[in-house]
Amino acid sequence: MTPFSQHDAAGRLRHLTTLDGIPGEQIRAILDRAQGFLRSPGELPARARTLDGVTVANMFTEPSTRTRASFELAARRLGGDPLNLDINLSSRAKGETVLDTIYTLQAMAVDVFVIRDAEPGVCQYVAEHVQEHVSIVSAGEAHLSHPTQGLLDALTVLQFKGGFRDLVVAIVGDIRHSRVARSSYQALAALEVGEIRIVAPPTLMPDADEMPLARRYSGFEEGIAHADVIMMLRIQKERLAGTSIPDDQEYHRQWGLTRQRLKLARPEVIVMHPGPMNRGVEIASDVADGPSAVIRAQVTNGVAVRMAVLETLIENRLQRGASR
Amino acid sequence: MTPFSQHDAAGRLRHLTTLDGIPGEQIRAILDRAQGFLRSPGELPARARTLDGVTVANMFTEPSTRTRASFELAARRLGGDPLNLDINLSSRAKGETVLDTIYTLQAMAVDVFVIRDAEPGVCQYVAEHVQEHVSIVSAGEAHLSHPTQGLLDALTVLQFKGGFRDLVVAIVGDIRHSRVARSSYQALAALEVGEIRIVAPPTLMPDADEMPLARRYSGFEEGIAHADVIMMLRIQKERLAGTSIPDDQEYHRQWGLTRQRLKLARPEVIVMHPGPMNRGVEIASDVADGPSAVIRAQVTNGVAVRMAVLETLIENRLQRGASR
Amino acid sequence: MTPFSQHDAAGRLRHLTTLDGIPGEQIRAILDRAQGFLRSPGELPARARTLDGVTVANMFTEPSTRTRASFELAARRLGGDPLNLDINLSSRAKGETVLDTIYTLQAMAVDVFVIRDAEPGVCQYVAEHVQEHVSIVSAGEAHLSHPTQGLLDALTVLQFKGGFRDLVVAIVGDIRHSRVARSSYQALAALEVGEIRIVAPPTLMPDADEMPLARRYSGFEEGIAHADVIMMLRIQKERLAGTSIPDDQEYHRQWGLTRQRLKLARPEVIVMHPGPMNRGVEIASDVADGPSAVIRAQVTNGVAVRMAVLETLIENRLQRGASR
Repeated sequence: MTPFSQHDAAGRLRHLTTLDGIPGEQIRAILDRAQGFLRSPGELPARARTLDGVTVANMFTEPSTRTRASFELAARRLGGDPLNLDINLSSRAKGETVLDTIYTLQAMAVDVFVIRDAEPGVCQYVAEHVQEHVSIVSAGEAHLSHPTQGLLDALTVLQFKGGFRDLVVAIVGDIRHSRVARSSYQALAALEVGEIRIVAPPTLMPDADEMPLARRYSGFEEGIAHADVIMMLRIQKERLAGTSIPDDQEYHRQWGLTRQRLKLARPEVIVMHPGPMNRGVEIASDVADGPSAVIRAQVTNGVAVRMAVLETLIENRLQRGASR
Repeated sequence: MTPFSQHDAAGRLRHLTTLDGIPGEQIRAILDRAQGFLRSPGELPARARTLDGVTVANMFTEPSTRTRASFELAARRLGGDPLNLDINLSSRAKGETVLDTIYTLQAMAVDVFVIRDAEPGVCQYVAEHVQEHVSIVSAGEAHLSHPTQGLLDALTVLQFKGGFRDLVVAIVGDIRHSRVARSSYQALAALEVGEIRIVAPPTLMPDADEMPLARRYSGFEEGIAHADVIMMLRIQKERLAGTSIPDDQEYHRQWGLTRQRLKLARPEVIVMHPGPMNRGVEIASDVADGPSAVIRAQVTNGVAVRMAVLETLIENRLQRGASR
Repeated sequence: MTPFSQHDAAGRLRHLTTLDGIPGEQIRAILDRAQGFLRSPGELPARARTLDGVTVANMFTEPSTRTRASFELAARRLGGDPLNLDINLSSRAKGETVLDTIYTLQAMAVDVFVIRDAEPGVCQYVAEHVQEHVSIVSAGEAHLSHPTQGLLDALTVLQFKGGFRDLVVAIVGDIRHSRVARSSYQALAALEVGEIRIVAPPTLMPDADEMPLARRYSGFEEGIAHADVIMMLRIQKERLAGTSIPDDQEYHRQWGLTRQRLKLARPEVIVMHPGPMNRGVEIASDVADGPSAVIRAQVTNGVAVRMAVLETLIENRLQRGASR
């Protein structure tokens, strides 16, 4: 078997299960396309018919109303047919294998599978087995990958900073267990951000061979000094066991982004968070609601980026079909 | 902070969380519009494209398949995009606050939030915080308000009686705990119904300062004598504790609408019920299925009224946008 | 009351609760129409607007993601509005009767009810009570009927064998408890298949008066000898109690379709399965994935057949309306 590739024979994007290995140029093309879907607040959202007749199945094994809604709206605003399915891919349901479930839905002419799953490898496994015209998009895979989140983070940086090259971006918090951190890192690295910092207590830092281009900081204040962009991560409380941090309050004291700490960054710093936020834990409420926060823009960009990804994959599929 | 208003600066309706304070003239305009959406049985339902590109999120904390379906169909038949969400606004889900949830969905370009919640005040709280182009519609709030039910009741009266001025309308049953009764009362009062009666045992009667224009009856027979319209309410069995009514059968004996009792009303009386009915409890089956019952017309009118409300709010929004 | 009929006064199909009593000619017409909805893999699915404005409610009391998805896609690809409802018709929900639930949805202008229910008789009961323009389609009723499965099985046979008359079709497994077997038998009998065999251990054989045209085989090898078509049924493990078959492995040894056994059939035999499959129980994995298997085509045909059924019922409804 040839090694798995997200690209087709002509190098066009066919799946999006990870940003790892996607060239910066293809990421830029998606961001460009996504920008075309942005509208001013109060305007009706952008719509197109480029997914007319295309069926997009949302298979969320882990609950996520917001990401599911974002994909559903993205598909629908392009004229596609979203199909929400309560199917657990990780385990056998009724004794049916994962592949039989996928083959069944593929036989119903599902064109795109949007999959969120707690188990590593499910997206790639499915992608390796579907027919040539079918695409897989990860909506979050274990602690490993959340590619559309990485793209929306990149789009948000581009929108507020105008570029990537001269920026200092600090990713802060539980990086070790975060698929958001991994995908954002991959996007930023591919886009050649000036300096990427990962800032975390040692127990929440990823293994030494991960994120090779990032500079590592075990001190919060030092890590965000003169930063242009701060990406705060959601803390999962159950992960604090075994660290020096006993509870929410103590986490906030040591690792919460407060107005005081924010002053260490550049004056025009932007503060990002993938949501849902734990106010008063990893981020103070007045920072979350303050002038530096671009958290709601991230959500808006999420729909635009997912529209751009879906449109790209379908466009590429049509080109594959035409060239045969 | 200025006191909450459902109207915008120009006096146009922007939210619909309660009928309290909506002028009769605006209610009439909604009913007029709703009448345009009525079709004969067997005809396909009315459709329009006035919600094209508009996203309507249904957030039902309390389960209600029928009201959720009615709003979903109303949005879709106007060309809008309904989005069903399993989000509990009353409590913090994953530590996210109510407002963060709303802000997130607003950032995805949700234009209208349809909210049902057991907790008083959630609709208004949300309405006070959303952006200017966003509208909130209550689909039932605690025991306080169910404005589209009040409107559909008014539309049904109008449809079968041709007007309001000379009518005697009796609302019967557990008025104390009923959001339907409150909203129907408000609609009927604003429309200047001739006489509104509330008919209930003392323990199920609302406080003395509520429903000031209504005449109160503690006897069923007296309360429905010569009535043109009888609105029966659903009894919640768990509320019978502490009353003189020990069980369903006893409730039916004392407060059930039977064919015998119905003879006390005007011959052309119409019988309404918000559903779902407890047959053999608050209403006898032969009355529910009899010639005076207009209960299914109420359901049909519910979709028409919800279409009219959604269209009104979006039309007003576009006018607000144009006048800026 | 006149006896229940699925046909209207002019003999046109109005409901589809069972294939029992549907003439072969009407089945052929549905299959013809369904063939028009088939597309090559990789092509976008067929679409039409013949259900424009039509609301199709999916009421699945028993969980079935795949069949629900198939009906949802069928309705949507014809331009209809699918409405997924979590309503249990078998039991009273909130004290509401089955008919009140149906009347309520009918009053919202639901045109077609797609019903799956574990209780025998629910579909017919509902069909007997709805208004003239409303249609009921069974999506699986107890162990009795699954008419669209019977139709998709027939379509698959037609697609791969070109006709029915000279074929030997063997239905194998737990026939006694299978609604699929009953509906497939009825379709094949109406289409005048050359020879229908039912092949099962005695405890899983239907009563003697059922399936009168079928030849009965209690031996697997004998039953599939020279067969053109083998339809394997899903085994329900809880039904093995009281049989001579203690477990999955033993079932597979005695009644599993293996490559070895498959050689007893005609060389160009096709193998069908309604899914979901228990690989290694009633069917060996290499048979399920082998060149004789047409199991995925069945799924594709399922959407096409459901489109054809919905379109037929709505077309007939419009003709009924026009002739009044």
